[in-house]
Amino acid sequence: MTQTYSPIIWKENKLYLLDQRLLPQTEHFVEVNTLKECATAITDMVVRGAPCIGFSAIYGMALWVKVQKDLTVASARAACDEMINARPTAVNLSFEVNRCFEIMKASIENKETNAGLFEKLVSFGHEQIHQSEVKNTKMAKIGFDELKKKFGDKKWNLMTHCNTGFLACGSIGTALGVISYSNKQNQVAHVFADETRPYLQGTRLTAFELSKENIPYSIVVEGAASYLMSHGKIDAIFVGADRIAANGDTANKVGTSTLAIVAKNYNVPFYVVAPISSFDITIPDGSHIEIEMRSPTEITELKGIKLAPPGAQTVNPSFDVTDHRFITGIICEKGLINPANVGELVRVVNS
Amino acid sequence: MTQTYSPIIWKENKLYLLDQRLLPQTEHFVEVNTLKECATAITDMVVRGAPCIGFSAIYGMALWVKVQKDLTVASARAACDEMINARPTAVNLSFEVNRCFEIMKASIENKETNAGLFEKLVSFGHEQIHQSEVKNTKMAKIGFDELKKKFGDKKWNLMTHCNTGFLACGSIGTALGVISYSNKQNQVAHVFADETRPYLQGTRLTAFELSKENIPYSIVVEGAASYLMSHGKIDAIFVGADRIAANGDTANKVGTSTLAIVAKNYNVPFYVVAPISSFDITIPDGSHIEIEMRSPTEITELKGIKLAPPGAQTVNPSFDVTDHRFITGIICEKGLINPANVGELVRVVNS
Repeated sequence: MTQTYSPIIWKENKLYLLDQRLLPQTEHFVEVNTLKECATAITDMVVRGAPCIGFSAIYGMALWVKVQKDLTVASARAACDEMINARPTAVNLSFEVNRCFEIMKASIENKETNAGLFEKLVSFGHEQIHQSEVKNTKMAKIGFDELKKKFGDKKWNLMTHCNTGFLACGSIGTALGVISYSNKQNQVAHVFADETRPYLQGTRLTAFELSKENIPYSIVVEGAASYLMSHGKIDAIFVGADRIAANGDTANKVGTSTLAIVAKNYNVPFYVVAPISSFDITIPDGSHIEIEMRSPTEITELKGIKLAPPGAQTVNPSFDVTDHRFITGIICEKGLINPANVGELVRVVNS
Repeated sequence: MTQTYSPIIWKENKLYLLDQRLLPQTEHFVEVNTLKECATAITDMVVRGAPCIGFSAIYGMALWVKVQKDLTVASARAACDEMINARPTAVNLSFEVNRCFEIMKASIENKETNAGLFEKLVSFGHEQIHQSEVKNTKMAKIGFDELKKKFGDKKWNLMTHCNTGFLACGSIGTALGVISYSNKQNQVAHVFADETRPYLQGTRLTAFELSKENIPYSIVVEGAASYLMSHGKIDAIFVGADRIAANGDTANKVGTSTLAIVAKNYNVPFYVVAPISSFDITIPDGSHIEIEMRSPTEITELKGIKLAPPGAQTVNPSFDVTDHRFITGIICEKGLINPANVGELVRVVNS
């Protein structure tokens, strides 16, 4: 399945990046013509989400190659470092740019033309997006088949938390990929998107993705989970993952575990959708996952408006860990894992 | 226990109302000298919360009596109606003002002095606040004794949802009354206040109440419930109620039921604190409670700032119903009711 809407567009040898800072009110693409412009877009968070940053940087390196007169391994390395420095802590960025460097180095050593290397890098960018699409579509189809098996041909009411669609992933997304794929098969009745406090990824980003794909949706506060499920409004829930331990315990955006517990209470199936690259079988369970604390102002302020009394404290964990007992299935590119089957996750990773 | 901080102050024959519209950033009392000023303060929501509105109106009627030359039953009735029309749907307002009218009528018929009637109405206002304090303190003590029995002398970490303190109740409050009372006994380590989306009563009002009473607190997003309880940070949870059915099912601010389910999962005791006037034993269970839906803009906007994509839909229930199975105890002025004991609630109401 090819993503119909993309935040990263390569067209007539130019890169266009959806300015995610302006979402969801304004849909504006920034034209990127040079390495510098690409690096600035990454630094300034025009583009966000690890995969998107990586894809953009590949095209950025192609744009750089295109205008070089005397391309050397040293100048290529310097250009790559400039790109990596746009966001030094983004692992995906340095990973993709260093792969670009290997392609550039081989090309320079083989005395290929600039134009040839340019095309190679553009193709490499296309290929990375394509591979991500293939992988996510595989996961989406597994999720779809599971829903079909469970609920048959009646249309499904699905719920999701945080943001896992094309804005985060470049291609069709993980949890939202299942929803998007199911919608294309005409099987989605309605999607309930958690607003996802404190950073409102659901309201700002997931709602934008759903509206772009013309999927009927409602934004809900997280507290409404029990109301919705007790009224039979949710057939299944899909969320993404930041890190999955060997026993299936899953770290994801704060609120995921709360939602999973409520789902279990109402027997609503709860699925995690994540590529194997998110699995960490070196840790036996979720207790080994450290949870970063974030700034109080995410809770006490909104767009500069103070909401809380002066001096208010917060406890603001970025993630929580969902116990594997509350997860019906973990969907990765190799299949559906039932965390109740001890050892299955590790076997799938090693298969 | 007398409330040390009050949003309603009667001093030197004048009424001062805390302007709750400016909370929590600004603490400003509006001086009220006349019926008209009092009615305007009620209409403009300077004062909010059913009990507070009722108390304010009593003092407002006293201020009116004070300046009358020719007091008649007809003019008293007209003045009462003017006050009631300040917020015609507020049941508590008409209830208290009509009680004032009975006092005024009797006084006029007995040809008492204006000054005497004025003092009578002021005393009536004081008495209503006092009675509310006595009732709430009784509930607070029952909650405190329960905590003492369960957790002994170590200091307690308590959690609450929405707003149930002096801003809502005038006097010490219901759920927050337990916390406030326990804090005065030096038994509170920390309070976690749910921000309470979408209207942020926790961030704006409960946090203000806690800071005024110097109780150590943190504001948390509702999604953090599982994180907090899985890390052992919560000993017990106290919430209020809008309506309690005969079997103990409890309607309260949306998010209450979600929180209660998570609490049950972690074996954290969950208490509802509400006067018997909130009990409705004519309905057997919560399925008979209708849930009002509120405006999408509560979720899609904040203080006029648009957060969601244009045209975003929401499902925004004002309340949810917490199943009695998730409630450890219901605290009312007659004692602690265990909803697991079938029929106990009805017996207590009828006792």
